[in-house]
Amino acid sequence: MAISVEALGDFVARALGARGVPDADATKVADLMVEADVYGHGTHGVFRLRQYLARLAGGGYNPTPTIAVAQETVATAVIDGDNGLGHLAMAAARDLAIDKARSVGIGWVGVRRGNHAGPLALYVRPQAEAGMLGMAAAVGSANHVPPHGGTDLLLGTNPIAFSAPAAGPDPFVFDMATTVAAMGKIKTLLQQGRPMPEGWMVGRDGKPLTDPARKSEGFLMPIGGSKGFGLSVAIGLMAGIMNGAAFGSDVVDFTKDTTSSTNTGQFVVALDPKAFGSGDAFARQAARVFDEMRASPPLPGHDPVRLPGDGKTALAKARRSHGLTLDRALCCDLNAIAADCGLPPPFAPDRAG
Amino acid sequence: MAISVEALGDFVARALGARGVPDADATKVADLMVEADVYGHGTHGVFRLRQYLARLAGGGYNPTPTIAVAQETVATAVIDGDNGLGHLAMAAARDLAIDKARSVGIGWVGVRRGNHAGPLALYVRPQAEAGMLGMAAAVGSANHVPPHGGTDLLLGTNPIAFSAPAAGPDPFVFDMATTVAAMGKIKTLLQQGRPMPEGWMVGRDGKPLTDPARKSEGFLMPIGGSKGFGLSVAIGLMAGIMNGAAFGSDVVDFTKDTTSSTNTGQFVVALDPKAFGSGDAFARQAARVFDEMRASPPLPGHDPVRLPGDGKTALAKARRSHGLTLDRALCCDLNAIAADCGLPPPFAPDRAG
Repeated sequence: MAISVEALGDFVARALGARGVPDADATKVADLMVEADVYGHGTHGVFRLRQYLARLAGGGYNPTPTIAVAQETVATAVIDGDNGLGHLAMAAARDLAIDKARSVGIGWVGVRRGNHAGPLALYVRPQAEAGMLGMAAAVGSANHVPPHGGTDLLLGTNPIAFSAPAAGPDPFVFDMATTVAAMGKIKTLLQQGRPMPEGWMVGRDGKPLTDPARKSEGFLMPIGGSKGFGLSVAIGLMAGIMNGAAFGSDVVDFTKDTTSSTNTGQFVVALDPKAFGSGDAFARQAARVFDEMRASPPLPGHDPVRLPGDGKTALAKARRSHGLTLDRALCCDLNAIAADCGLPPPFAPDRAG
Repeated sequence: MAISVEALGDFVARALGARGVPDADATKVADLMVEADVYGHGTHGVFRLRQYLARLAGGGYNPTPTIAVAQETVATAVIDGDNGLGHLAMAAARDLAIDKARSVGIGWVGVRRGNHAGPLALYVRPQAEAGMLGMAAAVGSANHVPPHGGTDLLLGTNPIAFSAPAAGPDPFVFDMATTVAAMGKIKTLLQQGRPMPEGWMVGRDGKPLTDPARKSEGFLMPIGGSKGFGLSVAIGLMAGIMNGAAFGSDVVDFTKDTTSSTNTGQFVVALDPKAFGSGDAFARQAARVFDEMRASPPLPGHDPVRLPGDGKTALAKARRSHGLTLDRALCCDLNAIAADCGLPPPFAPDRAG
């Protein structure tokens, strides 16, 4: 069912406000949550509202955080998110990284005491739109992955994202979990009542697990076996431990536990190609390589080659003009949230069920 | 067959010298090449000497480069490798990145007009030994990988490496190709006359390719399908295009072509945990998580969990004391190189064949 970007953002902001989040913060977080849906990151957008509200209600989030720079140099900083909604600290980290990159070619800003902040793409696309390269990574908000060859769940999906400008309609924006599947996609399948493909999860018996309702019985698999494991550990060290944030057994499962601080760690980077001599030529050269790739004859049975980010600018524009189409299950959930918060339902109840 | 680290380094330096490389550079490169073998990166160590000599003889390498900083800020730089042996520019980039990180918390140093520089581990381990985190990446020195779903070879194995200090004998040092297999491992199997496992390469017909002698007929597969593709493109943008170096169709195959400049692009990063508030606690916290991982009960049939880098310090020490054991095929090759260069054979000819 369709809803305008403005109406959805307004509803999300009011729901956050009903749980004690001040207007300015609620609006900022709601805008980022809706932007995630606008750019097609449906598993990390408004879909997460219930979870955030549960943590606000449970005392696991600070509704009125003070986002502060704990320490900085001309090129680096670490931001203390004060256990508020994760989008606040990550948006601040992104903006500060871009400022520093403008001045000294790079900004690398870590976050401690943050929280789940939606898709990392939100914190790298603006770099590309400003003519810069972006990178971001996070310690996942729950441990679903064992170390390579082991069985204890000590790693999250530890995502990483990259962006870069390219001449043409779309910047390069690439956001991946270091696991074959992200937990968000599994939660969406669970809500939709659909099974997982084999290879996403493995049970403790080593056999494939395909029922999303049994997700807590198994573990997610890293991409490339030991390679995905190493990459995930590297992200844990840079995004977690380096910033004084959680990694390993001290990661709090932010869905199961609605009362404890997670001390989530993340980082955001901006790089100015002018500092490396490529400058304005960067976007042209990137587009040249992307065009070569798109022109590559597809493998039998494959669609034409696409780059990460392709088509997103037009899709986002269309959604901003014509509204977002949300899954029926999500619409029902948002109406239920409205009832809980004493707000008018965002969808007509006869249609949302 | 065994050879001392000193004798092997001396031989490699003399061989490079015989192709016009000045003593100081030859010694520096030889030391790094041997260090690659000392730390177990056999596919990227002395094994590559023949290739480097061929490019020196063919005019593809500048034997007497001037390694220079083309542009810099307090936190960034781009080094022009002047088409010399790749180790020279990468060692300079690593040292400069560490210096900058000491001063402003981070150093991000790109390389243009570089060349194959051995394993990236060489350019991140020293950061960890200095109490810092390291990262490095490179545009691969030949295109063996198509874009996801395509068939034109437009990507290399585009490796990336990370390091971090950890309390205990071994720092975290992780060096991976973004493909399931690295071309170096395939070349080693070819030299040893052994087949590749299924999954490393696929032919243009989409079927598995296992004969290493037929490697030019197929392509390497990225880890995690579209994820490895996206990661590889991101590395190409940051290590290649941002530094004004090659990416896509302008990558020169440095094995087949011994006469053209490759304009290889790389980058090296150093991060000081003190700038992010973790400081000396970093190594303790990393060791805490690593110990949790090592204590995880293994999956049925698996060895105990190991972290990337585990055991390497002791292995390297033993090799420095007792010498390196090289594969017979490599020993024969080094003796043949000695004959070509007018040098005494490093191995007794009756034993090396």
